Amino acid sequence: MTGSAVSATALIWVDGERASALPLPDRGLDFGDGLFETLLLRAGVPQFQHLHLDRLAAGLQRLAFPDCLDRVRNCLQQAAGELQDYPWSALRLTVTRGSAPRGYAAPADARPRVVITAAPLHQDRCQPGAPVALDWAQLHWSSQPLLAGIKHLNRLEQVLVANQLADLPADELVVLDAQGHVCSVSAGNLFMLERGQLLTPALETCGIAGTRRRLVLEQLAPAISIPVAETHISPAQLTAADEVFVCNSIRGLQPVTSLGPRQWHDHSVCRALHEEYVGAMSC
Amino acid sequence: MTGSAVSATALIWVDGERASALPLPDRGLDFGDGLFETLLLRAGVPQFQHLHLDRLAAGLQRLAFPDCLDRVRNCLQQAAGELQDYPWSALRLTVTRGSAPRGYAAPADARPRVVITAAPLHQDRCQPGAPVALDWAQLHWSSQPLLAGIKHLNRLEQVLVANQLADLPADELVVLDAQGHVCSVSAGNLFMLERGQLLTPALETCGIAGTRRRLVLEQLAPAISIPVAETHISPAQLTAADEVFVCNSIRGLQPVTSLGPRQWHDHSVCRALHEEYVGAMSC
Repeated sequence: MTGSAVSATALIWVDGERASALPLPDRGLDFGDGLFETLLLRAGVPQFQHLHLDRLAAGLQRLAFPDCLDRVRNCLQQAAGELQDYPWSALRLTVTRGSAPRGYAAPADARPRVVITAAPLHQDRCQPGAPVALDWAQLHWSSQPLLAGIKHLNRLEQVLVANQLADLPADELVVLDAQGHVCSVSAGNLFMLERGQLLTPALETCGIAGTRRRLVLEQLAPAISIPVAETHISPAQLTAADEVFVCNSIRGLQPVTSLGPRQWHDHSVCRALHEEYVGAMSC
Repeated sequence: MTGSAVSATALIWVDGERASALPLPDRGLDFGDGLFETLLLRAGVPQFQHLHLDRLAAGLQRLAFPDCLDRVRNCLQQAAGELQDYPWSALRLTVTRGSAPRGYAAPADARPRVVITAAPLHQDRCQPGAPVALDWAQLHWSSQPLLAGIKHLNRLEQVLVANQLADLPADELVVLDAQGHVCSVSAGNLFMLERGQLLTPALETCGIAGTRRRLVLEQLAPAISIPVAETHISPAQLTAADEVFVCNSIRGLQPVTSLGPRQWHDHSVCRALHEEYVGAMSC
């Protein structure tokens, strides 16, 4: 870090201004009426920014927010510019519907707020992701097709799963959907290899459509000529898989070494995808 | 209002101090990791405060928050004391899990934040509640037994229903649960009269256990000797009801005059319960 660098505790922006607090009232706090993205930055350069902004745009549309993507992009660019002294950092971008009087109804003249918080990361994100041991979550994600896929601010189910995880000797938990199909882990998406084909859960009723999930589906798997599909996956099918990995924006692709008593030793597809992943990053 | 009264825009307290903003980061904003209550105050006296604090306590326990009820009670008392010049006011009490580093897992040393916002109300809340016309919501509440009943901050489903309501010539919408049973309206609970018995939906998988719902169940209906039960209610059953009313903390008990094409003209049970309700208020 150079002498001009800011202290990590102060890396907060609200609507493009350095800040330490959110003006109240705010519908993001009141109802979780908003969306967020967590971006990985390399020397201040957001990685796969278009994937994040695509998903954010889908969420803004789903929640009927006024168009604010240009402003979001400006706020992101400005904050990112102040993070270039950090080799790696994590940036959380939150868009709320802003202030409003009491009541659930969104005001017609809503002015969304853009809240950004950032923190340096101390690990080289080009290195292969740390292997993870999985177990099963007790909670099932609830089914709500109108909110599935987007990264909105209503994340109490994730908090409940994370609280269960804190009591277990596992790194992540596999969460099923309301129908009993495999959906994801608590903070990332999941892929499995079955007879040479890569499969990931379809996200019609719950779950978050991760940026790295999309990258694997559309770019990384095709690059190494592995067929890939979104489908329904049963718990038994996951346990019988030839290889399993999880992914999210900060931790990249992480090989799964176990799921309860089941163990995996071959992570060659995950390793090959990671090579492509690192090659696809922006400098 | 006296000369010493504060301006309505400034009626915000954070952890007992007058404030205009929420310190960041905060898990209430990040994940909706928190709970809220909306209290009706009469000359600064919270109405049915024990019912609100009971529900809040249940929510704090369900989400595994550290015990903070005494502090909440102190913050509430202090804010209420500054609202005594308003004949009626609405006070929103929000408890978040406070600050934490990135990630869904709740920190072991979480220190909850108490955020209070208030606004004067300009209508005498002892008058009978305004009659309401209902219609059906498109959305069904998702099923999540671990979060059902408590008033947590994840309220995007309510926002979506309120947004549908804004486009309709109705005052409220009836929302079904994932199984197709009647659950509630978007911002209140619902009762129906069937062969002399009062029925309200059981809230095992979704919905909020309203303070006025509990009051009707435990105090108001017994006071006028009407049998009352929590049960499953089908849409057809609701349409065939002899009388219907909705309730919430701010608007009290409101007779339902219509549900789509179905109309009701008899509101005698709702009127009788309202008399009891007014009698049960604190001065």
